[in-house]
Amino acid sequence: MSRDIFDDAEYDRRLDRTKTRLREENLDAIVVTDPANMNYLTGYDGWSFYVHQAVVVTTDRDEPVWVGRQMDADGARATTALSEESIRAYSDDHVHSPYDLHPMDYVAGVLEELDVSEGRIGLEMDAAYFTAKSYTRLQQNLPDATFEDTTLLVGWVRVKKSDQELEYMREAAEISETAMQAGLDAIEAGVPEYEAAAAIYDALISGTDEFGGDYPSIVPLMPSGDHTGTPHLTWTDRPFEEGDPVIIELSGCRHRYHSPLARTTFVGDPPAELERTATIVNEGIQAALDVAEPGVTCEEVEKAWRETIAKYDIEKEDRIGYSVGLGYPPDWGEHTASIRPGDETALEENMTFHMIPGIWTEDMGMETSETFRVTNNGVETLADFPRKLFTA
Amino acid sequence: MSRDIFDDAEYDRRLDRTKTRLREENLDAIVVTDPANMNYLTGYDGWSFYVHQAVVVTTDRDEPVWVGRQMDADGARATTALSEESIRAYSDDHVHSPYDLHPMDYVAGVLEELDVSEGRIGLEMDAAYFTAKSYTRLQQNLPDATFEDTTLLVGWVRVKKSDQELEYMREAAEISETAMQAGLDAIEAGVPEYEAAAAIYDALISGTDEFGGDYPSIVPLMPSGDHTGTPHLTWTDRPFEEGDPVIIELSGCRHRYHSPLARTTFVGDPPAELERTATIVNEGIQAALDVAEPGVTCEEVEKAWRETIAKYDIEKEDRIGYSVGLGYPPDWGEHTASIRPGDETALEENMTFHMIPGIWTEDMGMETSETFRVTNNGVETLADFPRKLFTA
Repeated sequence: MSRDIFDDAEYDRRLDRTKTRLREENLDAIVVTDPANMNYLTGYDGWSFYVHQAVVVTTDRDEPVWVGRQMDADGARATTALSEESIRAYSDDHVHSPYDLHPMDYVAGVLEELDVSEGRIGLEMDAAYFTAKSYTRLQQNLPDATFEDTTLLVGWVRVKKSDQELEYMREAAEISETAMQAGLDAIEAGVPEYEAAAAIYDALISGTDEFGGDYPSIVPLMPSGDHTGTPHLTWTDRPFEEGDPVIIELSGCRHRYHSPLARTTFVGDPPAELERTATIVNEGIQAALDVAEPGVTCEEVEKAWRETIAKYDIEKEDRIGYSVGLGYPPDWGEHTASIRPGDETALEENMTFHMIPGIWTEDMGMETSETFRVTNNGVETLADFPRKLFTA
Repeated sequence: MSRDIFDDAEYDRRLDRTKTRLREENLDAIVVTDPANMNYLTGYDGWSFYVHQAVVVTTDRDEPVWVGRQMDADGARATTALSEESIRAYSDDHVHSPYDLHPMDYVAGVLEELDVSEGRIGLEMDAAYFTAKSYTRLQQNLPDATFEDTTLLVGWVRVKKSDQELEYMREAAEISETAMQAGLDAIEAGVPEYEAAAAIYDALISGTDEFGGDYPSIVPLMPSGDHTGTPHLTWTDRPFEEGDPVIIELSGCRHRYHSPLARTTFVGDPPAELERTATIVNEGIQAALDVAEPGVTCEEVEKAWRETIAKYDIEKEDRIGYSVGLGYPPDWGEHTASIRPGDETALEENMTFHMIPGIWTEDMGMETSETFRVTNNGVETLADFPRKLFTA
């Protein structure tokens, strides 16, 4: 299936760039455990990341090696173009094992076979799913190896998107628009939050007339009422009430590529203060988008936002955006560049970011976001959705 | 909100049992990072597990301490009954930080304040979000602490469900029934896989007339056609075709409690071999359910299945079930007891399992599952859904 999603040449380029980075870091191999990085390098796609799995890249072997659970090996055959000798599977007694077996024991064996067990091996030390135990088992099995932290090595290889990746992100943006409209249409006084979530989910997966939607890495978030200041609470049985602000943050997904979008709506007539906040947020977003172009740094983009809202005596401490694209639960963010003070990453053409600034006053909050691509002289916002405070 | 979902006395019991286990293991504290365990001990619920967070329980402090990101502290205030001094938050510059700051540096500070930095501290070494880096940062910050692997300590405390937990699992089972029917209704030749996924999602979140559904920890899985042997592939744009077997595995979710359900359907007239396989699977499941009761071990339940299918010269190597209940992505399994050879866990009343055996012949597979509760003298299956091969 990966063959239909990206052509072989694109995987070759990804692998070449990764090997170049390994050589620059004087590494013999990297054990890739972030599911997004595994997908990026091989096309492997499946909901199997609740067990340990890895893609091993060595500098001197053409193909990467996929290592996973026996019952997922056919999934690797179906979604990657790897040859049979590059698909290695451990038996099911390694899974949540009462036998003191761990999947990383098997991975260690593969590293020995690949003749890097005395070499310098990169590990994604802070990637979700690469557990402390995975690390200690590799250490115990490979006492002569030297391990280095390469959490973001592949992430930085991913940061500029190819034309095909951008096409999937634009398709994801189309789905985001449809799903946002479905959410705005569903929200009204008396409707329980879960009904709006169901309408959004239906739209996210139904997609457009031309294509369906993949599952997003994060569920639709709809902090509402008193909870607009709690951005990561999920929906409940509570009915929306007159006077509720509701922030909707969601993302369409296409072949694991995301284009997140956030908007805010208000159930009833919004108070003047929230209208004013919306105006300031929009002015700040526009100022940040206006300044973004190749060569400008992430912190300069954030500064344009911060200086704009400072005119209204408002401060916001959090970062306002992050590199986005390929992802698996629990996150669609890429964890590399962030739009925040201190991040001196210079923008380059075809980097993609989700910029999601928000302002909270004493008892309500307002967020508006855009996913954008850096063009050769500015930015392209991927979704086309009105940037304003909505009312329900 | 936790106050409405479980009463304070239930949290007190959970905490008491956890502290008893800590004392039995001669531990001064445990750093709980599995989001399901965090929820179990405090009620904390939010899609914030893509950043590091923890609940710390010490033997000599009444309340656990929640530690998370600044922007999630209000989520902790909203979903737990913890007092203000038990909610500790790190600043946003710890998140995917370019400043060599890590959230576990902050957690280490909390452990020092709690006066356990020279003590014996349990860590969930193999929990999905407890990364290798989290571990090495705790080691660096707390050189005088002794760390022990307590990955499943809270999991085993969770294994027998309370009446209230069982009520939520029965509600989840109702949602599973509705969603399964929606999936079976949607699947027919020419319909793309994603449309069936959208129908299932809509039903999962819309819930019943009385209550809505929470997001399940695993997306609906629908391996079909050639891919019934690849259980963890997710839906695509491919239309279902005459002659496709389709396995649907899904779970309703209620307040993070699951009751998974799997059924198999066939697009068109099923071949005699698949009908025969379905009969064998059903006979095997019934045999396993018939033998299950308090005092019987997990491996004895598996043996009843295995001996039944062996009469037909069929072998299956994987485990056929696991303890189930409270969960967050990526998994609804609890990782404690498994129904498989070698697992000598004796069943006790109010343990809950998802039993999902399957049989694959050369080119197609068949799965049927039940989530069941161990009663005082047998089992109660939580969903009420025909156990047969469906046709579309």
